Amino acid sequence: MEGEPTRIMLAVNESTIKGYPNASISSRKAFEWTLQKIVRSNTSGFKLLFLHVQVPDEDGFDDMDSVYASPEDFKNMRHRDCARGLHLLEFFVERCHAIGVGCEAWIKKGDPKEVICHEVKRVQPDFLVVGCRGLGPFQRVFVGTVSEFCVKHAECPVITIKRSAEETPQDPVDD
Amino acid sequence: MEGEPTRIMLAVNESTIKGYPNASISSRKAFEWTLQKIVRSNTSGFKLLFLHVQVPDEDGFDDMDSVYASPEDFKNMRHRDCARGLHLLEFFVERCHAIGVGCEAWIKKGDPKEVICHEVKRVQPDFLVVGCRGLGPFQRVFVGTVSEFCVKHAECPVITIKRSAEETPQDPVDD
Repeated sequence: MEGEPTRIMLAVNESTIKGYPNASISSRKAFEWTLQKIVRSNTSGFKLLFLHVQVPDEDGFDDMDSVYASPEDFKNMRHRDCARGLHLLEFFVERCHAIGVGCEAWIKKGDPKEVICHEVKRVQPDFLVVGCRGLGPFQRVFVGTVSEFCVKHAECPVITIKRSAEETPQDPVDD
Repeated sequence: MEGEPTRIMLAVNESTIKGYPNASISSRKAFEWTLQKIVRSNTSGFKLLFLHVQVPDEDGFDDMDSVYASPEDFKNMRHRDCARGLHLLEFFVERCHAIGVGCEAWIKKGDPKEVICHEVKRVQPDFLVVGCRGLGPFQRVFVGTVSEFCVKHAECPVITIKRSAEETPQDPVDD
């Protein structure tokens, strides 16, 4: 029954408040859940594919106080964004290496929900794991849509791991 | 990392056309997918919990030509329904025993989507697997709602396994 490992794609993002290089609580939760409940001790039976989608607009906000005087400044900024994203992925890849689970990780730019579905189509994982903040009905309208969009549109089975209420940080700076 | 096995609940139903004791294609697909992609060779790491929800109204239709002359007739009919449901579950339990995966199976009566969510709350599986027929937009309005309801309301992660287009039987009698 073994053969090729089961390929699990995980969409991971950075902390909303703290930003890079911190992985969001919901990304880490989805990752740990996958290791504990799916991979378990069968480390050779699975391969984890980490996709991090950088949102160009959000990154722009972080750079409101920066001054760009030359084309090189922009190039440097893009390099820095890329480096930050790599830092984020490093967290997951190091953890996989420590426990002996095969993995791959890469970065794409764009609208997360669109890019995730596009990458599912391209990479064809066996299933997709997405984390999800346990949001109230008001917040859901604006931000709780990536996981819902993927459940509907991704061309593979999708499992959404909700952060439980007690995992919501008291201080949003830790989110 | 092993400890307690991961408890996976699978909601299974009978074939729409052939009825009992045939498991639906989507139930069998969801089951085989779970074995191949999640359980793999780690048979001691997982326990499968099979829930079959019998829909009272649908069963009533099967008995349109029956004549009920005494309270015993009704009792017998209910026994027969139960026996049919057990037959359905036997398929899954026998397969699990053959490959050495621990399992439990039980029957409940009611509205499948409500009962599944209620049983999730009671049994607290690590996640729920539901099969889903790949329906067109017209059919979805009427029947494609159990999996969608569970994704929204079940108090555990839910993974929906869609039957792919090429698995749709040519003859609906095989569905």
